[in-house]
Amino acid sequence: MPDPRFIENNYPFQSHLGFELKEWRADYALIEVPIADFMQNRQGLPHGGVHATLLDSAMGFAGCYTGDADQRQMALTLSMTVNYVGQAQGRRLLAEGWRTGGGRRTYFAEGAVRDELGTLVATATGVFRYRSQG
Amino acid sequence: MPDPRFIENNYPFQSHLGFELKEWRADYALIEVPIADFMQNRQGLPHGGVHATLLDSAMGFAGCYTGDADQRQMALTLSMTVNYVGQAQGRRLLAEGWRTGGGRRTYFAEGAVRDELGTLVATATGVFRYRSQG
Amino acid sequence: MPDPRFIENNYPFQSHLGFELKEWRADYALIEVPIADFMQNRQGLPHGGVHATLLDSAMGFAGCYTGDADQRQMALTLSMTVNYVGQAQGRRLLAEGWRTGGGRRTYFAEGAVRDELGTLVATATGVFRYRSQG
Amino acid sequence: MPDPRFIENNYPFQSHLGFELKEWRADYALIEVPIADFMQNRQGLPHGGVHATLLDSAMGFAGCYTGDADQRQMALTLSMTVNYVGQAQGRRLLAEGWRTGGGRRTYFAEGAVRDELGTLVATATGVFRYRSQG
Repeated sequence: MPDPRFIENNYPFQSHLGFELKEWRADYALIEVPIADFMQNRQGLPHGGVHATLLDSAMGFAGCYTGDADQRQMALTLSMTVNYVGQAQGRRLLAEGWRTGGGRRTYFAEGAVRDELGTLVATATGVFRYRSQG
Repeated sequence: MPDPRFIENNYPFQSHLGFELKEWRADYALIEVPIADFMQNRQGLPHGGVHATLLDSAMGFAGCYTGDADQRQMALTLSMTVNYVGQAQGRRLLAEGWRTGGGRRTYFAEGAVRDELGTLVATATGVFRYRSQG
Repeated sequence: MPDPRFIENNYPFQSHLGFELKEWRADYALIEVPIADFMQNRQGLPHGGVHATLLDSAMGFAGCYTGDADQRQMALTLSMTVNYVGQAQGRRLLAEGWRTGGGRRTYFAEGAVRDELGTLVATATGVFRYRSQG
Repeated sequence: MPDPRFIENNYPFQSHLGFELKEWRADYALIEVPIADFMQNRQGLPHGGVHATLLDSAMGFAGCYTGDADQRQMALTLSMTVNYVGQAQGRRLLAEGWRTGGGRRTYFAEGAVRDELGTLVATATGVFRYRSQG
C-alpha cells in the first residue's frame, strides 16, 4: 500500500474506470482494477484502451514519485507503445510501471499488465516530459 | 453518418466513454466524443488513455468494414503507438483511422485525434490481426 | 536539391550506407538510397535496420532545418516506431520525414519509405529532443 | 557461443556493420559489435539506425531458434519501437533480444542495447510474423 501520507484522492478518469494505486515508490508504481462488464469491446473482451490507460497511468506515476506530498510532480506522455501479448484469464488486471532512464526534463518507462493469475496481457514503453513544479 | 444498414449497437466500453461512430467505410472510420469531466487525469486534462482508446477503436473499425451486416469482421490489436502532439482547445474529440496496408491476416493503420477546431492532439500507428469470421 | 549553401558533408554512417539528402526545407526532408547487395538480411531482403536508419535520418533532418549554415540545429531521437508495411519492388528507396508538432525542446515527426515506383514500404513516427546550439 | 552446428554464415548487412551472433537459444539471442567510426551520425555519435538494426536483429533471432540447422525459421518484422535511453560510454555494443509471447503466426519480443560497461543505451519492443518454412 502506498505510504498514507502520499495518498491522493482518485482523479476522475481513475474513478470512472475503478482502478487503484496499490504501490508507489521511486521509479515504480502498481495499479489494480477489477475486470468489469463496462470494459467490453465489440468482441466482448476488455478494450485495448483499458490496458493503454492502465499502462500510461502506471508509467506516469512511476516517474513522478517525490516522497513529499507538498511537492507533487507531474508529467506529460510524449509517446507510448502498447503490445497486446495475451488475453487475461482472471478477474483482475495488475499494471506495473518502471522508470528506466532519463533526466530532469524527460524520462523513459516500461510497463506490463498481468492478470492475478500471472498471465502476461500487455506490455508498454513510453517517453514522458516533466512539467515544471508549481 | 454510417450506412444505417451497418449500424451496430454501441458496445459497453463505447457507451462508458460516450463515443459514437460517425463515418465508416472501407479502410476508414471516424469517431466523435464530447470532452467530459470524467475523462480528467491527475492534472485536470483529458487522460491519455482516452485518446488511446479512441485511436485503437478508429483504427480497429477502419480495417474491419465489410459492407455486409451479416459478415462482421473482427480484429485484435497487436501493437499500437500513440504520440501526444498537442492539447485540445475545443470541446469535442474527433478520431480518424485509416488502413494503410497489410493483407488477409494482418493490417496496418494510422490514426489522428483532433478537436473540433482542428487542433492536432494525438497521432497513432498500429498493427492488427484479423480474427476468423464465425 | 537542397539549397547548395546548406549542403553539409555526408557524415560517416550516411556514406557507409550511401544515402543522399535530396530535399531539405522547414519541417521536411527527403533522403534517397540505391538498394545495394550489402543491405541484405538473412532472407536476402533489405534489412529492416536500413529502413529504420533512413526514417530516423529523414525525421531528424525534418526538425532541424534552420536556413542558416552557421546555425546548425541538432536533435537526439527519444523514441521511434517503424511499421514494415510492404516490400520494395524497385531499385531505390526514398525516405521522407515531416515535423508534425512540438515546441522548442522536443518535436514530433512522421516518416515514410517508398521505392521509386511508389510502393509504400515502411512508415514511422518519432519523438526528438533538440540539443542546445553551440 | 552459439552451438557450432547452427552457425550460419554472416549475412551481408551483418558483415557490413560487423556484428556477431554471440548467443542463440530458444527465445533469446545476443549480438555484439565494436563501435566503429563509420557508425557516426551528424553529431559524431553512433547513429540511432545502428541500435535499431541490432535490436531488430536480436529480436528477430530470438523468435527463430529451431535447434535444427536444416529447419531455418524466418520472420518478418511487422512493427518495432526503439527508445534511446542513454549514451554508450564504452567501445562495444551488446544487443539482447527476448521472445515474450505470441503463437505460431506472430510473436512479440523485447530487446536492450548496453555497452560493455553495462550502460543502458536503448530498448525496444517488436511484433514479428513468421514466414512459412521452405
